[in-house]
Amino acid sequence: MRVIASVAAMQRLAGQWRNAAKKVAFVPTMGYLHAGHVSLMERARKLAGPKGIVVVSIYVNPTQFAPHEDFTKYPRDFKRDAALCWKAGVDVIFTPSDPEMYAPDFSVYVSEDRLAKFMEGVTRPHHFRGVTTIVAKLFNVVLPDTAIFGAKDFQQAAIVKRMVRDLNFPVKIVVAPTVREGDGLALSSRNKYLSTEERREAPVLLLALQTAQAAVAARPVFGAKLKKKIQQLIATQPSARLDYVEFFDPQTLEPLAIVKKGAHMALAVYMGKTRLIDNAEL
Amino acid sequence: MRVIASVAAMQRLAGQWRNAAKKVAFVPTMGYLHAGHVSLMERARKLAGPKGIVVVSIYVNPTQFAPHEDFTKYPRDFKRDAALCWKAGVDVIFTPSDPEMYAPDFSVYVSEDRLAKFMEGVTRPHHFRGVTTIVAKLFNVVLPDTAIFGAKDFQQAAIVKRMVRDLNFPVKIVVAPTVREGDGLALSSRNKYLSTEERREAPVLLLALQTAQAAVAARPVFGAKLKKKIQQLIATQPSARLDYVEFFDPQTLEPLAIVKKGAHMALAVYMGKTRLIDNAEL
Repeated sequence: MRVIASVAAMQRLAGQWRNAAKKVAFVPTMGYLHAGHVSLMERARKLAGPKGIVVVSIYVNPTQFAPHEDFTKYPRDFKRDAALCWKAGVDVIFTPSDPEMYAPDFSVYVSEDRLAKFMEGVTRPHHFRGVTTIVAKLFNVVLPDTAIFGAKDFQQAAIVKRMVRDLNFPVKIVVAPTVREGDGLALSSRNKYLSTEERREAPVLLLALQTAQAAVAARPVFGAKLKKKIQQLIATQPSARLDYVEFFDPQTLEPLAIVKKGAHMALAVYMGKTRLIDNAEL
Repeated sequence: MRVIASVAAMQRLAGQWRNAAKKVAFVPTMGYLHAGHVSLMERARKLAGPKGIVVVSIYVNPTQFAPHEDFTKYPRDFKRDAALCWKAGVDVIFTPSDPEMYAPDFSVYVSEDRLAKFMEGVTRPHHFRGVTTIVAKLFNVVLPDTAIFGAKDFQQAAIVKRMVRDLNFPVKIVVAPTVREGDGLALSSRNKYLSTEERREAPVLLLALQTAQAAVAARPVFGAKLKKKIQQLIATQPSARLDYVEFFDPQTLEPLAIVKKGAHMALAVYMGKTRLIDNAEL
């Protein structure tokens, strides 16, 4: 396993792989890896095949954080991450520094106009511009055939797929299922921030998804009514504060007035100061 | 020489070239080719080498035109263009349709924030967003090693270079010199719009550049004073109306209060309804 910090070295190596017709599967991450990431790497290993290459990037991307968000305190543990990558059969870790990725007069951004307006885009207005910009950069540096994203960030995966379609990136996007703790909490590097109390209450996000699934199983229901139900459920947990819950078309992400089976639900909940997200098909 | 209209077919072929380690040199155009384009193709032919591939795209890109601009009447002559490409040793013409390039719910754009604010960006506010978006798309479809742009569009070339740097496109940008008519008019597909009278007066753009070069040859001069001089010169031609003239740093494109040798000058002039641009190092 190689660890590469330089953009030029990574891009040169990727160019050699291309010219040798090697399959490259890529997992972009912000590090502090957990079993969710490991499942993405294992998926990448399978997609690349025994002769192919698996690249994992570990980079906490500043442009997707707002000034008041947790960029500086985002958890980092390279040694542990490297061990997990090694165990998962990763060939190359790409871990650039900020000055490698962003020149002082950096001025080019990739932005998505429609899907990014909803949900996370409301609470975090510049977040997705940071995501599409860094993913475009990483695609150009790593030159993957396939890139694997986690389903926990449903809107992010939808926006990356849209970027690939609209800018014609020669990359196939694979979305791998959310990995959960035994009690249903979706794995996230931010779970580390939770107090014991908050951690105990955090499975309420999955409970909310299951409640909505049960509610629409028999017949369509009004979105407004279902929202109220979810709000009440979240309110039962003392540490929890609902940021948003939305029912939407999984292609356009447009909110649905009437929610049926097959619709998608996503929610964001503050547990104390930590913001957790989750989603599911209903 | 092959003519390809489908994005998927072009991208598949480009992928095969990559996997065979073939050098690809690319000239993006809007067609209605002239000797300026031919010089770019010849440059591409040299850069690709005898075993390499030269691709020319012919595509009048709607997203870089404002609604009031000349998108629909922009001159088109594919047969003549194809003959010129053939003569210049082009291997592939890529000529997609609008629906191939832009889905009805297209929503991803590449934009440059700093260099695009000046000059053309003032008169044509969304122009460069259209340019960077289509060039990013074409790079992802054609997968070139090198792309050749004309120096007549100095700001465009600067912005494309910035895009390549900031988004890490694995493409080398080459800027080839402006080709001129005998009387000094820079070649442009839009010259076709000029009446006999306007055509006769059009070399005033080059005269303006030469006047400024002479003015700064001995010592630095105030930008404001030099601007006035150029304004007066343009005003001597009855069909001409100055849109802008700027003296600027060729790296940052920031305007200079004091203009010396080595500074860059660009101007845009309406000849009747036709807008012409030109530029030079002073």
